[in-house]
Amino acid sequence: MDVKGMPVADCDSRCGAIMLKLPQWLCAIAQREDRALVSVESRTRFAIELARQNVEHRTGGPFGAAVFEAASGRVVGVGVNLVEASNCSLAHAEMIAIALAQRAVGRYDLSAAGGVYELATSTEPCAMCLGAIPWSGVRRVVCGARGEDAAAIGFDEGAKPADWVGALRQRGIEVVRDVLRDEAQAVLQQYAKAGGLIYNAGPRP
Amino acid sequence: MDVKGMPVADCDSRCGAIMLKLPQWLCAIAQREDRALVSVESRTRFAIELARQNVEHRTGGPFGAAVFEAASGRVVGVGVNLVEASNCSLAHAEMIAIALAQRAVGRYDLSAAGGVYELATSTEPCAMCLGAIPWSGVRRVVCGARGEDAAAIGFDEGAKPADWVGALRQRGIEVVRDVLRDEAQAVLQQYAKAGGLIYNAGPRP
Repeated sequence: MDVKGMPVADCDSRCGAIMLKLPQWLCAIAQREDRALVSVESRTRFAIELARQNVEHRTGGPFGAAVFEAASGRVVGVGVNLVEASNCSLAHAEMIAIALAQRAVGRYDLSAAGGVYELATSTEPCAMCLGAIPWSGVRRVVCGARGEDAAAIGFDEGAKPADWVGALRQRGIEVVRDVLRDEAQAVLQQYAKAGGLIYNAGPRP
Repeated sequence: MDVKGMPVADCDSRCGAIMLKLPQWLCAIAQREDRALVSVESRTRFAIELARQNVEHRTGGPFGAAVFEAASGRVVGVGVNLVEASNCSLAHAEMIAIALAQRAVGRYDLSAAGGVYELATSTEPCAMCLGAIPWSGVRRVVCGARGEDAAAIGFDEGAKPADWVGALRQRGIEVVRDVLRDEAQAVLQQYAKAGGLIYNAGPRP
């Protein structure tokens, strides 16, 4: 399919382009981050640190994520929750990290980018982000806090398949859970204690 | 939470902003679309027409969606599949329509925008878009083709909860299926016959 030279729109608020702007502190981190984060713990700690900074900068919900090139430990995408700041319910940490990683490598499927990529997230993915993971092409997902830890402070995780870990594994995507769970939980608690907005949409079940 | 005046980043490809550009033909439609599409059929037909045009313009996969203000029938967001064109696996029709609708009304939760909003989609949502629907604040989802119709031409729909319709209904979100299913299926077939890319990410279960 020829998509080269597709005209770029410049029009009104009903269309044009979708733009999700990142907070400056996050860009600063992404620009200077040149460590090789090789261990599962160091990658999860990085995602948790993004979540903590998002709380401290008051730029969004207590969630952080990053995509790594597995072999080198290089960060290729970062994300934090920006739902409120961007007025966009899709702007979860994992989604932003995936989109930025795909832009960085120039592929909509990271599994076709000539390397193995991995997603680290401060809290297990909600139903939307879970659904996005197979489409992203990442080959491993590393999680800090559990979904129930987010639910414990009032966040809705959505309707996930009963065995979501098995469903990802069936697709060749490894899942590592409970990495630094205490540290990740602490950020959720910090957000709740600071009176951070719990922003779930409309009636809940 | 104070997110006003949040600095906007201007930095390198690992961060900055995420931008999904829409094709010009889609903007043209959105700009001139001022009909009141009141019936379920007229709304679904509009979503199917977007899918068809995406195929004919060769700007992406055979999927279209739109968000409507339920009472007036006014289009507030449009979307088509732009995965390949945008190098972003998140760029499904429903996601784009939701993001544009939220931008148009200035709320990340359409259920808090002072009206009732509805999503019409040419094919039932994949697992990611399904997970995104409760977060969007739409109150009704109207679908043309079934998920299995997309699977029949090779698209992977992901791992949805067994009773996904019931799961949405439990959240107060009505689901209407099989609206103009034949017309919607015809667009999927048209895409397959034209040799359109079936772009699922690697290994499938």
